[in-house]
Amino acid sequence: MEAVFTTHNLWMMIATILVFIMHLGFASLETGLTQSKNTVNILFKNATILPIGLLTYAFWGFNIMYPGDDFAGSFFGFAGFGLSMPEGANTGGYNEAYTYWTDFLFQAMFAATAATIVSGAVAERIKLNSFLVFTIIYVGFCYPIVGMWKWGGGFLDALETPFYDFAGSTIVHSVGGWAALAGVMLLGARHGKYHNGKIRPIPGHSMPFATVGVFLLWFGWYGFNGGSVLSADPGLVSLVFVTTTLAAAAGAIGALITALIVVKSNDLTMVLNGILGGLVGITAGADQMGVTDAIIIGLVAGALVVLAVVFFDRMRLDDPVGAISVHLVCGVWGTLAVGLFGELASGAQIVSQLVGILSVGVFCFAVSLLIFYVLKATLGIRVTEEEEIEGLDIGEHKMRAYPDINNKAEEVYS
Amino acid sequence: MEAVFTTHNLWMMIATILVFIMHLGFASLETGLTQSKNTVNILFKNATILPIGLLTYAFWGFNIMYPGDDFAGSFFGFAGFGLSMPEGANTGGYNEAYTYWTDFLFQAMFAATAATIVSGAVAERIKLNSFLVFTIIYVGFCYPIVGMWKWGGGFLDALETPFYDFAGSTIVHSVGGWAALAGVMLLGARHGKYHNGKIRPIPGHSMPFATVGVFLLWFGWYGFNGGSVLSADPGLVSLVFVTTTLAAAAGAIGALITALIVVKSNDLTMVLNGILGGLVGITAGADQMGVTDAIIIGLVAGALVVLAVVFFDRMRLDDPVGAISVHLVCGVWGTLAVGLFGELASGAQIVSQLVGILSVGVFCFAVSLLIFYVLKATLGIRVTEEEEIEGLDIGEHKMRAYPDINNKAEEVYS
Amino acid sequence: MEAVFTTHNLWMMIATILVFIMHLGFASLETGLTQSKNTVNILFKNATILPIGLLTYAFWGFNIMYPGDDFAGSFFGFAGFGLSMPEGANTGGYNEAYTYWTDFLFQAMFAATAATIVSGAVAERIKLNSFLVFTIIYVGFCYPIVGMWKWGGGFLDALETPFYDFAGSTIVHSVGGWAALAGVMLLGARHGKYHNGKIRPIPGHSMPFATVGVFLLWFGWYGFNGGSVLSADPGLVSLVFVTTTLAAAAGAIGALITALIVVKSNDLTMVLNGILGGLVGITAGADQMGVTDAIIIGLVAGALVVLAVVFFDRMRLDDPVGAISVHLVCGVWGTLAVGLFGELASGAQIVSQLVGILSVGVFCFAVSLLIFYVLKATLGIRVTEEEEIEGLDIGEHKMRAYPDINNKAEEVYS
Repeated sequence: MEAVFTTHNLWMMIATILVFIMHLGFASLETGLTQSKNTVNILFKNATILPIGLLTYAFWGFNIMYPGDDFAGSFFGFAGFGLSMPEGANTGGYNEAYTYWTDFLFQAMFAATAATIVSGAVAERIKLNSFLVFTIIYVGFCYPIVGMWKWGGGFLDALETPFYDFAGSTIVHSVGGWAALAGVMLLGARHGKYHNGKIRPIPGHSMPFATVGVFLLWFGWYGFNGGSVLSADPGLVSLVFVTTTLAAAAGAIGALITALIVVKSNDLTMVLNGILGGLVGITAGADQMGVTDAIIIGLVAGALVVLAVVFFDRMRLDDPVGAISVHLVCGVWGTLAVGLFGELASGAQIVSQLVGILSVGVFCFAVSLLIFYVLKATLGIRVTEEEEIEGLDIGEHKMRAYPDINNKAEEVYS
Repeated sequence: MEAVFTTHNLWMMIATILVFIMHLGFASLETGLTQSKNTVNILFKNATILPIGLLTYAFWGFNIMYPGDDFAGSFFGFAGFGLSMPEGANTGGYNEAYTYWTDFLFQAMFAATAATIVSGAVAERIKLNSFLVFTIIYVGFCYPIVGMWKWGGGFLDALETPFYDFAGSTIVHSVGGWAALAGVMLLGARHGKYHNGKIRPIPGHSMPFATVGVFLLWFGWYGFNGGSVLSADPGLVSLVFVTTTLAAAAGAIGALITALIVVKSNDLTMVLNGILGGLVGITAGADQMGVTDAIIIGLVAGALVVLAVVFFDRMRLDDPVGAISVHLVCGVWGTLAVGLFGELASGAQIVSQLVGILSVGVFCFAVSLLIFYVLKATLGIRVTEEEEIEGLDIGEHKMRAYPDINNKAEEVYS
Repeated sequence: MEAVFTTHNLWMMIATILVFIMHLGFASLETGLTQSKNTVNILFKNATILPIGLLTYAFWGFNIMYPGDDFAGSFFGFAGFGLSMPEGANTGGYNEAYTYWTDFLFQAMFAATAATIVSGAVAERIKLNSFLVFTIIYVGFCYPIVGMWKWGGGFLDALETPFYDFAGSTIVHSVGGWAALAGVMLLGARHGKYHNGKIRPIPGHSMPFATVGVFLLWFGWYGFNGGSVLSADPGLVSLVFVTTTLAAAAGAIGALITALIVVKSNDLTMVLNGILGGLVGITAGADQMGVTDAIIIGLVAGALVVLAVVFFDRMRLDDPVGAISVHLVCGVWGTLAVGLFGELASGAQIVSQLVGILSVGVFCFAVSLLIFYVLKATLGIRVTEEEEIEGLDIGEHKMRAYPDINNKAEEVYS
């Protein structure tokens, strides 16, 4: 008993730090896909979002998301401030697979993800202070409230056919995706992106960092999905590893082929986002799918990413890194796929999946629209045009990301 | 029993994702050691090789490499398409240390390595489409066929004194190395590399990425070698960790000293490749060596890398990243070393090691020469001179890796 | 029994490779915070320090640091050259949680850290050869001697109220920090840094690499602190993970706020160093603190880093990466904090902590001052002014880090 408990807990701790490294993945990806004049700003956001997410989750978030039976309602519960360690919290008396501390930390690492997803979509024009205020509110309150609906025993878990979201295609990724959409709508496009009815691509400044980001995210996803088994159960975790891997691989191929057809190019950023799309897509049902299911889900997700990137661009919704396409579109797709493929496929499940997608979507989109709207009316959410053209690194941070390399380049480009 | 099985399987899953991260290591290293005008191309290849390798291994590769007793011959076997999960595949009934899914995925992560090694050697001038076709054939068929000869119970395993290759100095690294040699011979050197009887160095564009790549490869090698124990056996895995570490460290020192003597410089790329040489060298016998053996093997490997890089350059075999020196030369050295040092050292073992080295070498070199030859005669394998000078990023991908930094630099250099 | 032993040993091996990856973190951070003309030099140092540290630790260091009961005195002991594997060294007969090989390798990975910390502080002007000689002496002898005082059963462990240093705020980080201080004092500031009574900032050349470095260090710290439990004990390791995480997060916020007040800027490098400060600060008592303790320790550490960076600059002590502020100042703070917060807080403990801080400080500062002084008088420790202005990459290595990107920039800047 002690031995199995120790092994389960060990895996959950390792999964926790794999999710941690996803934040470096997000930072690298967002850095790579944006311009070098905004790099310090992007790194600063990523280096502060995670600490903010961890601390707010310790102060109150964990106790909102997992209020426990005594405090939970269908839509909201709260077990009080701070970490309230119960009896026997460091043994199997708390949980048969992990300690109280492991439980807290694994969940805490997930929390900041929602804001990180938004960060990419609103990059290169959002005011730093407003973004940090948004992060505190959204990560501190919206994320754990929605999470409680399913993982904390709320109404989505209590449906007759319970809504199913294994590791968070909806509960994590679309929560970020909806807020990204709201932010992009209220902010408007970057200066010069849509000019005289034409779409002007603004390429990211470092494809190596973008690639490093995607590989680190894929690496960390083994903790994100594999840890969501909530034990080191050999059969389940290894199945989840296989479905996660094959969906990512199929996402790359799906995006590669779709990009060859649609944009007629061997487009690296599409392949990279295809990998992420496949990963987001499999997340809702990674433990329910077979090999073929996982490959189909990934292929479709990879294709969807390319189509969605093109679609949002035509809609004049300017998302520098493709976060909405990856996390919202593929989040919805993956959640639906649980009703279409694998062990749970059924009409009733499709209905429950739609209920989950819509209720989370309406709440998150409305709340984030409201937050951004109030911020816009008060602090302002967009930097000045001069600051945007010069770059947020100088405007918000008085620093450059590459001071002795690209000064010259900036003279040429600005 | 359940507890030990869970721990063994956990280690094998973690080893699997450590091997995964080696692919990021390869991508970073190859990026760093080549020119910035070809970076998108290199990242694209690395981001697609792994998905191709994983999917072909799922479709048929695993069942070629491990056909099982019912299907195996001495040279070839095939257990059918797709993943054919046997009874009890997620328990100790399948294997006393890991599940069927873990078994598949650990092996699948190895498979793409062969093509990744080739990618570095043929970089900066090979046509993308031809390389991807090569990858599908070589990773999809040649790699698992050769792997079966030893690890799948084929003729090399059935020798009276069985050929020994613990984690793949020959079965993985030299398989990549032979194809790299064949590719380089058929492609010819990069434009301007050998001019008027002189060797013109074409330095890689980012030493930080090269260094990141080597450290990530070293990190991942703990899964590559440590996972090849096929369980979490404390004594064996920790011994393998120690021999792997000391061989890598000695490889650095061996290359450092040899470079000081031969090229008379504190040459960073030589030290980096020396580390990799030490790692490749210990791979065949990491579980059979003592501390002193491991250090000697690493020192020699580090020295060999430097000498081989100089030698191949004199032979006008243009290998931008030194892949042939690292993976083929040190792969051969490490395989031979099993007969010279450690527990298995004996005359009979040396003979068996030579049989393995030669049979794998003849097969891989001949087959890859044939594939590249047919590709050369049909699709063509080399980009045009104009495309090569302008860079493959524009020619094959219509993108730049650093669009707002090095435009200026390219004007200066091209 | 076997199962628990296997799990404990597995965690210790994984912790070992997490500490390994910290060396990539140090390399990336130091690269990012210095100028591109010295990047090859910095990478070269980092790629050779670790091999030197590992090999010297195998040759004699481990047997100095852990001489065993038969050989230990209060201040020095030595169990002979090489690795002397005792009976039953690969089973619970050696240690109930890990094998002899795991024990050696986990400790060996720590050893090189001391020199790596120094490397950052003396960067951009120290002679390569002198630095490597310093590394061999300091890592090979000083580090294990000091380590023995506490972890090898020496006099600091034998105090009536034993000095407490869980994972090495003093024994590792301040050991590096004191030598960094000595080196900076003897070397003097970089050319142009303090000019006409003014402080001229010399910004690092790549904020993305600096950020990657900090995230990798944070990641690796889970092995550094979590492995210092010396088993996979679920309650203890998960508590250590939580205190480590929250201290890092609080360090970021402490530095963020302090920088806004003191330097009036959203300063990315301060936030990054604040994270590291929080991590160093919690290291001495990571297993003794509660949630609130950890957050306070981190907040103070983050504030201290900013104040210390400003202070050392005013003192004309030129530390390009802030290593003295992070590792020495926060190392002292974290060690003291064990007497002020958490389970061990008491007056007697404060006294013991001061004894440990001072005895280690006096020894390390004096010895490293002596080593650098002798090197200065013989080999010389500083490159020529011309070499410094041109960059150590050309002077020491005849290479550039980014040959096809920043040539142009160097023309502009030099």
